Amino acid sequence: MNRGLLFRQLFEKTSSTYTYILGCQKTREAIIIDPVKETAPRDAKLLNELGLSLRWALNTHVHADHITGTGALKQLIPGVKSVIYKAGGARADHLIEHGDVIQFGGEEIEVRATPGHTNSCVTYVHHGGRMAFTGDALLIRACGRTDFQEGCPQRLYKSVWEQILSLPEDYSIFVGHNYEGIEQTSVAEEKKFNPRLTKSEEEFVHIMKNLNLSYPKQIDRALPANLVDGELEEKHEA
Amino acid sequence: MNRGLLFRQLFEKTSSTYTYILGCQKTREAIIIDPVKETAPRDAKLLNELGLSLRWALNTHVHADHITGTGALKQLIPGVKSVIYKAGGARADHLIEHGDVIQFGGEEIEVRATPGHTNSCVTYVHHGGRMAFTGDALLIRACGRTDFQEGCPQRLYKSVWEQILSLPEDYSIFVGHNYEGIEQTSVAEEKKFNPRLTKSEEEFVHIMKNLNLSYPKQIDRALPANLVDGELEEKHEA
Repeated sequence: MNRGLLFRQLFEKTSSTYTYILGCQKTREAIIIDPVKETAPRDAKLLNELGLSLRWALNTHVHADHITGTGALKQLIPGVKSVIYKAGGARADHLIEHGDVIQFGGEEIEVRATPGHTNSCVTYVHHGGRMAFTGDALLIRACGRTDFQEGCPQRLYKSVWEQILSLPEDYSIFVGHNYEGIEQTSVAEEKKFNPRLTKSEEEFVHIMKNLNLSYPKQIDRALPANLVDGELEEKHEA
Repeated sequence: MNRGLLFRQLFEKTSSTYTYILGCQKTREAIIIDPVKETAPRDAKLLNELGLSLRWALNTHVHADHITGTGALKQLIPGVKSVIYKAGGARADHLIEHGDVIQFGGEEIEVRATPGHTNSCVTYVHHGGRMAFTGDALLIRACGRTDFQEGCPQRLYKSVWEQILSLPEDYSIFVGHNYEGIEQTSVAEEKKFNPRLTKSEEEFVHIMKNLNLSYPKQIDRALPANLVDGELEEKHEA
């Protein structure tokens, strides 16, 4: 009696981060994408109430604006393995590569490398649910900044067009952040309305080099911690 | 080629309010449930980008914590009709009653009176999508307060059990607010985990009479405006 995928989107207000739970209805195995340290207890409680057994805690990249909850979830739920793309140089239980497939029960997601915001960026694609989880590579009517970490607008442009917007137009896109309360978009929408990615590569690079963004509030706290599953801060405070 | 229902959930951060867009994929007619005045321009823009023609702007009740966006959407999108349950005594283009069905293209939602938080509370049920939009009658692991407006815990208990938790257990529940970033629940979950509604009616009434909540921040501004489609404030300021 496989009733398919159980799917939940969650929101962390301070950093406007979206977290996603995907579970196999049949076996109850589950993954979580981009948990936040502060809301890890909420996520663990909900997983338990939904009768889900968390197997993998995935990051889409080494975040600069909040501390990942993968380490906190490992402490709250024994047996959980953290996952990150190996190109970022961060520590995790399982380092993934482009083309890998992560299984949970009868469900699976494909790993697509989408660097450009950072070297560590991946997009997770769940073909069964026609969904892509893009982290900060592609945002709703926007994209991740390319002016710090290993940011590179040319690389981001190539990643988004080759690995995300090349998916079928009806695929839903679930992003890492949104600051306007919009919870999802689609390949069709971004191909039509993204004010940056619909431009030529040259124009895109010009736009990205002239955003004049302020320094990320939590970066000095978040980056070192996120290289080690978000577990550095406690050690510093101890 | 009816590909079914187009569904979008949106969030307004200041009052932690959820707004919902439901559209008929075939005819592109749409409804919006509980828009907020401040985010009405965002909603109008998204409706336009999604190629949807907004027909009805629905309130689940006369809100006390934010100003409804139904009036603002009527100004932004000509032809839209506002909708509210007639028992609340508020003005709207279309006053609904328990048992009414609201149609948009090939889709429809059923109106169920669920008073108790206010007299004006209804739950909208979309049986095709197995979804209920409960406003503040039933919240995630909680419920609307019953200590002001026409609040009555006995009436709320009866409403929730008879009109919402009597739905099939797999129905998803989409609520009016959540302050923890949880975006949806289900009939099964609330029947099992709601700390108030799983109690006896007597215990429920005792809990609701002892919440000791603070006065809603926006009530003095919101209530008079929400009796007239959220359009009162400008007149006062003019």
